[in-house]
Amino acid sequence: MGDPAGVGPEVVVATMAQMSNLERESVLVIGNLNILEKAKKLLNLDLHFDRDSEHQNGHVAVLHVPTKNDHQIIDCEISGAAGEAAYQYVAKAVDMATKQNIGAIVTAPLSKEAMHIAGRNYDGHTGLLTHLTRAKEAFMLLSGGKLSTIHVTTHMSLLDAANGIRSSRVLSTINAADKHFKSIGMKSPRIAVAGLNPHCGEGGAFGMEERNYITPAIKAARAAGIEVTGPISGDIVFLKALQGEFDVVVAQYHDQGHIPTKLVSFEETVNITLGLPIIRTSVDHGTAFDLAWKGRAKNKNLNAAVAYARKLVSLSQQEMVL
Amino acid sequence: MGDPAGVGPEVVVATMAQMSNLERESVLVIGNLNILEKAKKLLNLDLHFDRDSEHQNGHVAVLHVPTKNDHQIIDCEISGAAGEAAYQYVAKAVDMATKQNIGAIVTAPLSKEAMHIAGRNYDGHTGLLTHLTRAKEAFMLLSGGKLSTIHVTTHMSLLDAANGIRSSRVLSTINAADKHFKSIGMKSPRIAVAGLNPHCGEGGAFGMEERNYITPAIKAARAAGIEVTGPISGDIVFLKALQGEFDVVVAQYHDQGHIPTKLVSFEETVNITLGLPIIRTSVDHGTAFDLAWKGRAKNKNLNAAVAYARKLVSLSQQEMVL
Repeated sequence: MGDPAGVGPEVVVATMAQMSNLERESVLVIGNLNILEKAKKLLNLDLHFDRDSEHQNGHVAVLHVPTKNDHQIIDCEISGAAGEAAYQYVAKAVDMATKQNIGAIVTAPLSKEAMHIAGRNYDGHTGLLTHLTRAKEAFMLLSGGKLSTIHVTTHMSLLDAANGIRSSRVLSTINAADKHFKSIGMKSPRIAVAGLNPHCGEGGAFGMEERNYITPAIKAARAAGIEVTGPISGDIVFLKALQGEFDVVVAQYHDQGHIPTKLVSFEETVNITLGLPIIRTSVDHGTAFDLAWKGRAKNKNLNAAVAYARKLVSLSQQEMVL
Repeated sequence: MGDPAGVGPEVVVATMAQMSNLERESVLVIGNLNILEKAKKLLNLDLHFDRDSEHQNGHVAVLHVPTKNDHQIIDCEISGAAGEAAYQYVAKAVDMATKQNIGAIVTAPLSKEAMHIAGRNYDGHTGLLTHLTRAKEAFMLLSGGKLSTIHVTTHMSLLDAANGIRSSRVLSTINAADKHFKSIGMKSPRIAVAGLNPHCGEGGAFGMEERNYITPAIKAARAAGIEVTGPISGDIVFLKALQGEFDVVVAQYHDQGHIPTKLVSFEETVNITLGLPIIRTSVDHGTAFDLAWKGRAKNKNLNAAVAYARKLVSLSQQEMVL
């Protein structure tokens, strides 16, 4: 359900309302039943919630997760209470996914700031999920629209990102992209790697990270048989990918990947976490506290996140059968 | 003419060939006559060059600037000889513009790497022009297409850019944008400022530059009557501008501004240097050594740069008359 004070509850109930009965019966909403009821009323939707229920009659099954300070949650406001609630929903979902009670997690937005107030010092969903699943490392992939981008670094300051580029992480990011796109049916995904510095450092004139870290990683990946090219200047590589030259771009930092991907496919772009032992997709927008609880939030992005999760679950089940 | 080994000579002669006689007679090409002849032959164009001539009969007036090691220049290769030649063309152009013998400079691409080999350690055209005109500071504006972006920092490593954000420079960049768009006829340009860090640092969770440097500059500009908004997260602000909410976005570093602007309007986007005592526009692509001298380089972007320069000259002449 995401942060209860943000757009999460609204987009969740809107998406549930747009599903067929059959689709709806395969989904469990993990959140707060009272807040979901409030969002349903706000949007004037014809939905029936069943608490902790079996899935039947096209009703929405809700796993009600009350938290201690729920009474302190105020619509559109950043609070530790809301941050803690959002944390608990994710923790419960991970627990169920790890035990294979659910096939995939789809997340609505949470606020890192609210979570930090609650003392949960994760860098957002990706860091939280990495910790909870005890994964070695995770990767944020944006996909589903006209551009696909995977990130070497994500939720850290630009200074930390620029300081933190290392060959090992660039290489594992390339590997994660290759593995994912092979898993969804591409024989030999065409991967491009963006440079960190303007014009890839222009031959060392401004920045050596391309020479010292990025190029060695690309060479190692290519030696392992991966179809990878680069580094290519950030201001060119996404245009090339958009024109069909590459299937996915490895971006060195958050905005480098997010700016072009969201610019060309704002509503269609889904956030997929790779490297975890569970399947997880997410909306690619934030809590939008300024927009929340006015009945104006759009849920098309959540629909896309649910659809991508269904596709991955379906493919993983086929794999198990094979 | 730009770096003689790159796409400069080709796009220059192609653009000259596409002009009407009247347009052509108002342009002087500063470069190397022999190399221009070679480019003309490559493209099989019907053009006549007049060395150091008056403008007449639809001929192309060329100011031939030979340099010491011109014989060492090889097509498509980075060299100090080509870097020095490109430098000399710009130096001559600046000299003429400063003396008001020409109304504006339009530049073809040069290679910073080649210029550095030649011992000309500028961060590209912008730094070179700032030095030659003794300007206090200059600003790179990308405009002419669907998005307009002005940059707080440009040709430096990402690490230096992240380290170098200061209120004074953010403020002077906002002021330069406001002044420029007013000069081309906007009454109150709507300016947005991008954050440096992902999600503008998410309330300080990753990065304090927004609080410490960017927000104070925005407040100061607003207090001075400028219609400026921000900081807005990098992955949202360009989409808002594209949707018509803003006239120009202040980007904190090169790729932040270049990625979205070139993605949506690759051929139409022109590079304009603000803050100089002269008018200067440029193509927004590089030397493309891999593409050069094959007759395949497109000159649409140079056409756009020439058109933008003509517009600015025309407006500045109107201003002088008024």
